[in-house]
Amino acid sequence: MSDRSMILTLSCPDRPGIVSAVSRILFEAGCNIIDAQQFDDNETGRFFMRVVFNRLEHANSEADIAASVEELAGRLSMTFNLRQSSVKKRVMLLVSKVDHCLADLLYRWRIGELQMELTAIVSNHDREHLACTDLGQLPFYHFPVSKQTKMEQEARIWGLVQETNTELVVLARYMQILSDGFSAKLSGRCINIHHSFLPGFKGAKPYHQAYERGVKLIGATAHYVTSDLDEGPIIEQDVERISHRDTPDDLVRKGRDIERRVLARAVRHHLEDRVLMNGKKTVVFPG
Amino acid sequence: MSDRSMILTLSCPDRPGIVSAVSRILFEAGCNIIDAQQFDDNETGRFFMRVVFNRLEHANSEADIAASVEELAGRLSMTFNLRQSSVKKRVMLLVSKVDHCLADLLYRWRIGELQMELTAIVSNHDREHLACTDLGQLPFYHFPVSKQTKMEQEARIWGLVQETNTELVVLARYMQILSDGFSAKLSGRCINIHHSFLPGFKGAKPYHQAYERGVKLIGATAHYVTSDLDEGPIIEQDVERISHRDTPDDLVRKGRDIERRVLARAVRHHLEDRVLMNGKKTVVFPG
Amino acid sequence: MSDRSMILTLSCPDRPGIVSAVSRILFEAGCNIIDAQQFDDNETGRFFMRVVFNRLEHANSEADIAASVEELAGRLSMTFNLRQSSVKKRVMLLVSKVDHCLADLLYRWRIGELQMELTAIVSNHDREHLACTDLGQLPFYHFPVSKQTKMEQEARIWGLVQETNTELVVLARYMQILSDGFSAKLSGRCINIHHSFLPGFKGAKPYHQAYERGVKLIGATAHYVTSDLDEGPIIEQDVERISHRDTPDDLVRKGRDIERRVLARAVRHHLEDRVLMNGKKTVVFPG
Amino acid sequence: MSDRSMILTLSCPDRPGIVSAVSRILFEAGCNIIDAQQFDDNETGRFFMRVVFNRLEHANSEADIAASVEELAGRLSMTFNLRQSSVKKRVMLLVSKVDHCLADLLYRWRIGELQMELTAIVSNHDREHLACTDLGQLPFYHFPVSKQTKMEQEARIWGLVQETNTELVVLARYMQILSDGFSAKLSGRCINIHHSFLPGFKGAKPYHQAYERGVKLIGATAHYVTSDLDEGPIIEQDVERISHRDTPDDLVRKGRDIERRVLARAVRHHLEDRVLMNGKKTVVFPG
Repeated sequence: MSDRSMILTLSCPDRPGIVSAVSRILFEAGCNIIDAQQFDDNETGRFFMRVVFNRLEHANSEADIAASVEELAGRLSMTFNLRQSSVKKRVMLLVSKVDHCLADLLYRWRIGELQMELTAIVSNHDREHLACTDLGQLPFYHFPVSKQTKMEQEARIWGLVQETNTELVVLARYMQILSDGFSAKLSGRCINIHHSFLPGFKGAKPYHQAYERGVKLIGATAHYVTSDLDEGPIIEQDVERISHRDTPDDLVRKGRDIERRVLARAVRHHLEDRVLMNGKKTVVFPG
Repeated sequence: MSDRSMILTLSCPDRPGIVSAVSRILFEAGCNIIDAQQFDDNETGRFFMRVVFNRLEHANSEADIAASVEELAGRLSMTFNLRQSSVKKRVMLLVSKVDHCLADLLYRWRIGELQMELTAIVSNHDREHLACTDLGQLPFYHFPVSKQTKMEQEARIWGLVQETNTELVVLARYMQILSDGFSAKLSGRCINIHHSFLPGFKGAKPYHQAYERGVKLIGATAHYVTSDLDEGPIIEQDVERISHRDTPDDLVRKGRDIERRVLARAVRHHLEDRVLMNGKKTVVFPG
Repeated sequence: MSDRSMILTLSCPDRPGIVSAVSRILFEAGCNIIDAQQFDDNETGRFFMRVVFNRLEHANSEADIAASVEELAGRLSMTFNLRQSSVKKRVMLLVSKVDHCLADLLYRWRIGELQMELTAIVSNHDREHLACTDLGQLPFYHFPVSKQTKMEQEARIWGLVQETNTELVVLARYMQILSDGFSAKLSGRCINIHHSFLPGFKGAKPYHQAYERGVKLIGATAHYVTSDLDEGPIIEQDVERISHRDTPDDLVRKGRDIERRVLARAVRHHLEDRVLMNGKKTVVFPG
Repeated sequence: MSDRSMILTLSCPDRPGIVSAVSRILFEAGCNIIDAQQFDDNETGRFFMRVVFNRLEHANSEADIAASVEELAGRLSMTFNLRQSSVKKRVMLLVSKVDHCLADLLYRWRIGELQMELTAIVSNHDREHLACTDLGQLPFYHFPVSKQTKMEQEARIWGLVQETNTELVVLARYMQILSDGFSAKLSGRCINIHHSFLPGFKGAKPYHQAYERGVKLIGATAHYVTSDLDEGPIIEQDVERISHRDTPDDLVRKGRDIERRVLARAVRHHLEDRVLMNGKKTVVFPG
């Protein structure tokens, strides 16, 4: 993405003329729309849009464009987000003992597949548990946690989030339930990977639950974290076929592949501003 | 399948020598094993096997083979089933108002894809609701049902099952919950198609539940009917991707495709004696 | 779709202001955009758009809207198509001896899943071969064909296409190669289902080719017919997993399921004006 | 796997009594069959079997069991392989500049998912190209190659294979075509990942070919290397859906995910002796 490329996402109550108004503003500001996707939720009457555009040579400044959008947003009761495509989001990764999602995200980041700045890797276990993953020079923090120290530990993480200007927190198999308060602070910018095809098999040991139930497919779910455990807006899911031959250990192994690709896709969608919140659901504009 | 082809399925506590004993019996009876599949459930210590074999020219009679297997079964605490491959199972189809599964099963039967004898088509609604499906000369029974008449209606169906020597009852979107007693009578020989990826979205209107939850894949589940609603042993499942663009009606439409192929596969597996009960789960030997 | 709903599809060389111009025209004509999807092909510099809109109460007439779009099309070197959503396309089905795709399309049409008017069913074999399919009162034509009579037979089909105002011809496993001239006449409005995952296994007996090669997945491809056999623009593809256990007959059976769902999706996309030609490829706006 | 667990794979012309003979030998030698899978290829009349068994406490020695199998093999024209399950195969990885498959295999090896001993990592490019992958203490060899030095370079690799007792060579996106002679030496023990769904898009730049053709799914293929380029026996394949929105770069990115999971599965199947050669095809007994 060049420095002249910008992404605008917005949502507002649906009414005639929104697309026309948005595209006119951008046209008149000297911008060329590269990609636009929109969605009318007929159930709720809410309208969602994602526009990628280039500022042409004699285009208005970013600030001027922002001002025009802001003015429109006021008129249309619109919430919006406008940013330069090339500015990478700042991301913190939280992990416990299993590190396949962490290793996968780091590899994708190193080869440039995921455009993000990593601010920190935080674990409730010490670094030795991540021995299979090359953390390189990334700042690592060991914040142990117990029932008694949960409040303090979350405060430390929150402090680090603020200090590092972290914009997205990824729970890459973090295995700790965030408190309601912490979930609220991270609303819309904390992605968790749950190792089941939600809403099936909420809670602990989902692969063992799946084994007991005898399902023929297992899955994983990436969702925004909310105070309502395993009920957050779903961003991405996927499944794989299993058979009676698969033991719980086989499910865990097969699940690792599903989890890491589902989480990576969800993070990517988020980094590219493709995910818009729609109540308890998401709108995900395809890449 | 020729008349000389037979299928033996069995299960028993695992111990050394079972495969050896079974294969020796068949070899000594003048049979050639065409296909054999087995499964050791390490969790329960139970052993499962499916053997397809041909009686060669000078082979023992079917009765003699059955006697040998019976004798072995006694020694090994084995439950087994032995039958001629070419004898078609007798199947009754139950349906309510939506007929896509019915139409699909009938087409597959007509072109010879599903090897079965159809004994009857039974609906709680009258025939007009199945106007999109060609029932041909198949016997159709309209057995209406209400809360008050449920017992009598099930007794009529059960009477018909006995009268027609029906071996398998398929609930092809029947939309009625069988009573515990009726479920018990049909244990292991009644297949239902549930229009969700169980255990997610049990109960009524699963596509609407899926829509509300905002899942990214929907599915269907074929399972044996038990008195525990939506908890029967799962035979087959499948899913398809959906997006925020899909309305509940779209989910219903996409679901029809999943339901009919999942149900058809499950019925086929059952007709070919590929499905063995393993407690609340199934062993499905692939075709 | 109400009578006030219209669909506009268009493509033109990309330049700034197209979305703005299109949405302004519709807004000023008193229309509300329900759904808009667009695509910039960066490789070719070509722009594609599909807009669904409602004419509000005091909107301009259809003719006036058409005139405005026409005027814009002239300025932007745009090809476009504008039609009332509720007007069903007129479709002819061609078939040979296997009828699973035909039966499937007819069922979907009967339950209202595929919005089309069927003009005729044409086969090069007589009606008895379609005994498993209920043709109802649909006009059926038996147009036999041989190498010697191919020209005449195609002329008969073409005559029927014209006479019945057929807008789309579907080769539902027709198994005859259309001549170059006939393909040209039907360009962009003739869909074929090929029983392989193209470009693998072109030509005859693709499932047998797949069996010989030992692939682990088989597939089907729906594409527009061009004079270049099996090279037409692809609309939809899908696959299923197979194993070494599957015989060529098993592949044919599994393939039937893939073929019918791939063809049905492609036909549906076409009927809803979701497919735009992009040289030798297609743009398919998701439903 | 305990030290008492062994795996026997075999193939021979089909005839009555093979299963009986094999299972009797193992039973009489004091072994308990844990898992047995077999396949009759009706086309070729060839029989394939994989048996996993435990030597019970008073079982015969491994050597005695091997002798019994050898004796049977002689009588039945059987080729077989017998080994202790816990002995890890010795594997060499060859790679060029892209390292996603390498990184993935190494991670799976480190967490114990792939049971193998790594003998060497060999590249035709120097180590800097693998900067995103942690090679740890693994022996790395830079063997540059040019048209002129191909023979010598292959001789060096071959020397290293022999010296390190390498049993399996994995081309983890090696991007060099092995000579016929070298392919022959590695017959049945060299796995390549091709970045297309073969037989579609053989040769160079398959993702660009796929883009040009406008397919709706892309895939990857793991196969044994033979002198006939891209025609070796296929072990595993998989695909993912793409759309008109995907650029060639997107296909390369999505392809990485498919390639690494297809290759990992194929390597795993091979390491567990699940893959038997059947002419130009494979029998893969599921895990």
